[in-house]
Amino acid sequence: MAYETDNIFAKILRGEIPSEKLYEDDDTYVFMDIMPRADGHMLVIPKTPCRNMLDATPHQLASCMNTVQKMSHAAMTAFDAQGITLQQFNETEGGQEVFHLHFHILPRHEGVRLRPPGVMADFADLKRIADKVRAVLDQ
Amino acid sequence: MAYETDNIFAKILRGEIPSEKLYEDDDTYVFMDIMPRADGHMLVIPKTPCRNMLDATPHQLASCMNTVQKMSHAAMTAFDAQGITLQQFNETEGGQEVFHLHFHILPRHEGVRLRPPGVMADFADLKRIADKVRAVLDQ
Repeated sequence: MAYETDNIFAKILRGEIPSEKLYEDDDTYVFMDIMPRADGHMLVIPKTPCRNMLDATPHQLASCMNTVQKMSHAAMTAFDAQGITLQQFNETEGGQEVFHLHFHILPRHEGVRLRPPGVMADFADLKRIADKVRAVLDQ
Repeated sequence: MAYETDNIFAKILRGEIPSEKLYEDDDTYVFMDIMPRADGHMLVIPKTPCRNMLDATPHQLASCMNTVQKMSHAAMTAFDAQGITLQQFNETEGGQEVFHLHFHILPRHEGVRLRPPGVMADFADLKRIADKVRAVLDQ
C-alpha cells in the first residue's frame, strides 16, 4: 500500500496543523496523542515517510525505537510510572487509523486500566501533562 | 531492574524447555506464543539478555524490529492477514509477564477480535499454524 502525503501526521511534520510537541531529533518527532488512553500517552514517528512497520526502512525502525526508549524513560520519571505499554498498529485491520508509522507509548500505573479509545483530551490538560515530560527532558 | 536468568524465554534459548520455533538468526529467535490471542500469534526475542525495551541496547532493539518486520510479512502471507498488531510490554504494570524482552506479532483479519489472554493453545493446532509460517519462510 502506498504512502499518502495528506495524512494528519505528515501535516503535523510540515507544520500545517499544530501538535503538542515533546521532542525531536534528526530522524524522529514526538508529540501528545490527542485521544490519550493514559496520562502521558505519546506518539513517536519518523520524520521521513513510511506507511507503517511493514514498509519502514531499518533506519526508520531503529531511530524510532531509540526515541521510544528515551521517551519511555522520560515518561517513567515524569509520571512516576511503573511500566510502559508499547503498541504499534499496521493497516486498518491491525488497528491503524493514521497511515504514517507511529508507536504509542502508554505510561502505566498499578490498578489503572487504559481508557477507552476515541475520547478527545482537554487541551489545557494535555499541555499540563506535556510540560511534565518536557521538564524531565530539560534536566 | 535486573535481568533474571531463570525466566522461561532464557530457558527456551538455552534449549532447557521446548518451543515451537519459527525462525532464528544471529541476534533473534522467533517462536509461537502458547497462549495465542490470534492465530499465528508469535514472539520475537533477542538472543542476548535484556529485561525489556527499557534496558535494551540499540542493537537489540534494531535487530528485533528487523525480525519483527520479516515475520510480519511472513504472517501476512501465511494467514492471508490484512493487518498486524504489534505489542510490547514493560514491567508488570505495563503488561509484562516474562522478563526477557519480547515483541508480540498478532496477525489480524477484518471483524476478528483478539481472543482473551491466558488461554492455552492446543499444541497440535499450534504446530499446524507454525507449519504455515515455516512454509512461507522456506519459499
